[in-house]
Amino acid sequence: MMTLENLISNIKPLDQSAMEIASARQDDLTKPRGSLGKLEQISIQVAGITMNPRPRIEYKVVTVMAGDHGVVVEGVSAYPSEVTPQMVSNFLRGGAAINVLARQVGARVVTVDMGVALEMMPHPNLIDKKVAPGTGNIAKGPAMSKKQALQAIWAGVEVVDTELEKGLDILATGDMGIGNTTPSAAIAVALTGYSATEIVGRGTGVDDDGLHRKTNAVAQSVEINLPDPNDGLDVLSKLGGFEIAGLVGAILAATANRKPVVIDGYISTAAAMVAVSLAPQVRNYLISAHRSLELGHQIMLEWLGLEPLLDLQMRLGEGTGAVLAISIVEAACRTLDEMATFREAGVSDKED
Amino acid sequence: MMTLENLISNIKPLDQSAMEIASARQDDLTKPRGSLGKLEQISIQVAGITMNPRPRIEYKVVTVMAGDHGVVVEGVSAYPSEVTPQMVSNFLRGGAAINVLARQVGARVVTVDMGVALEMMPHPNLIDKKVAPGTGNIAKGPAMSKKQALQAIWAGVEVVDTELEKGLDILATGDMGIGNTTPSAAIAVALTGYSATEIVGRGTGVDDDGLHRKTNAVAQSVEINLPDPNDGLDVLSKLGGFEIAGLVGAILAATANRKPVVIDGYISTAAAMVAVSLAPQVRNYLISAHRSLELGHQIMLEWLGLEPLLDLQMRLGEGTGAVLAISIVEAACRTLDEMATFREAGVSDKED
Repeated sequence: MMTLENLISNIKPLDQSAMEIASARQDDLTKPRGSLGKLEQISIQVAGITMNPRPRIEYKVVTVMAGDHGVVVEGVSAYPSEVTPQMVSNFLRGGAAINVLARQVGARVVTVDMGVALEMMPHPNLIDKKVAPGTGNIAKGPAMSKKQALQAIWAGVEVVDTELEKGLDILATGDMGIGNTTPSAAIAVALTGYSATEIVGRGTGVDDDGLHRKTNAVAQSVEINLPDPNDGLDVLSKLGGFEIAGLVGAILAATANRKPVVIDGYISTAAAMVAVSLAPQVRNYLISAHRSLELGHQIMLEWLGLEPLLDLQMRLGEGTGAVLAISIVEAACRTLDEMATFREAGVSDKED
Repeated sequence: MMTLENLISNIKPLDQSAMEIASARQDDLTKPRGSLGKLEQISIQVAGITMNPRPRIEYKVVTVMAGDHGVVVEGVSAYPSEVTPQMVSNFLRGGAAINVLARQVGARVVTVDMGVALEMMPHPNLIDKKVAPGTGNIAKGPAMSKKQALQAIWAGVEVVDTELEKGLDILATGDMGIGNTTPSAAIAVALTGYSATEIVGRGTGVDDDGLHRKTNAVAQSVEINLPDPNDGLDVLSKLGGFEIAGLVGAILAATANRKPVVIDGYISTAAAMVAVSLAPQVRNYLISAHRSLELGHQIMLEWLGLEPLLDLQMRLGEGTGAVLAISIVEAACRTLDEMATFREAGVSDKED
């Protein structure tokens, strides 16, 4: 059986040779050098990830992982927990924002029950990886056991392994879980050392009292659980969520298979931080989709060393920002692959 | 025959009723209110533009207007003028960045010779609207006569009218013309009152000496021609380019027909400024695609009162940023139209 250490040891540096060829080709294409800005950088990164100097993005997958959170009893969310399974049903019927945006870019939506509190009706498009019906209240104790955290990570790995068999050129991460900006903030506080006040935002829209309760819950979760910032698994199991752990596994599996991973907003970024603290090489495989409106997201992105592609003032989750950003990554790869060179087009190059 | 005044009088305010219905629907969709950020704002704007509370973006057109510039003799560009027709040929063969990006979003590329210096070979996909083989040197005198400016505007109107017959739900503006950041900067200096030093950037990549020559040429063009900042046609004819004038016409025609217009970078923004100074209602129909790396673009956007959707450090022109932004506008309209409401999905709304 594969251990987490085995999986992590499969995550390799980017391929410098593919990146050099891609970079040289970018300089030969019919445009002023560098004029496609971040598209050029992304295309070179994807070349390094895939070991292919002219990569193509054809098969697109967004994994939307769902779970509930014991910490909601602290009054940290504007919505009741029952919304988690209701939104999962909405994903399965194709009525949520993520379904609409995924249809536009041609991405498969893979919906996973990682730990929804309610027992979900079986559905052909719902992957049941439920670890438990919601986490423990992190303001009082750990979210889950280490064993459960590992189980959830492996569930995420299995989900991506199955999708890899069907074809996967890019993975977008998405989440659903009422209350899940709270554990995400707690993870960020534990890993960055910033205070809860600097990291906690309004999530789906709590009022001032709710924000106060949420900030306290996050501060308390770190004080009580004493997570070790040098041990990603410890941080994840004490402060995380099952959907966050599932995303950690999905990110590890995709990067171990040399696939680019587009990270959505706040929750996905917290998962990415855990993945990077488990396996620093992961960082090179990540593309940050967008800057979330949620407070603290910028601090998390800086910790990861990532610059987001989009800034559309979104704060929805579900993978919506990540799926929008897939279009940009696809555009980056297509321009690298399909544009004519100066020589091919008979265009005079810059006089220098 | 239609006069410019007739055309301008057809540009009406946005439809408030469609905007209110769209806005109310956004609040009913299964997501926290406002959580789709700019996508929500854009969808409401497009509802107001099209008088349709659930607009769809199906037919997409990018007009790439090409022209040459007498001012290149001042040494303002890193590339020789021969690149303009070479790039037009590249567009016609499908090898340029705009072709690749337009294929991805399913947009038609409409290539127009507005004033390329070289005589172009006829091509089934090249629209010949050549006003003259390049403009006059604006550092020494006017770019064109008022009659030529009007001819170029009407050419742009005709191009869009033809495309409207084929189906057009959104217009993206694009340009090609070696040296055309110089007249664009001159237009911006004339209309905003900022100095050439604050507006002029490196374009396709001139060196320090080139930047100095370019800044001088722009300052001189305004000093010599004395354009009237309250007369858009005067500014355009004295400082513009034939492709810029064609874009002005295209923008006026699209807005007179209640179509959203996605403005590309520096050159397109200069054209939009002229269009807005001719017809202030135009402003409501504009969507700024992206923040160009070119110095001064931000000042021009502020003058227009527009916030760009993307910031990908691009500076290519051709409509590349505008076509990328079409995906965002399409996503905005699709989410408004296709997402389920709370009631339809049986999802509990926020407790408030």
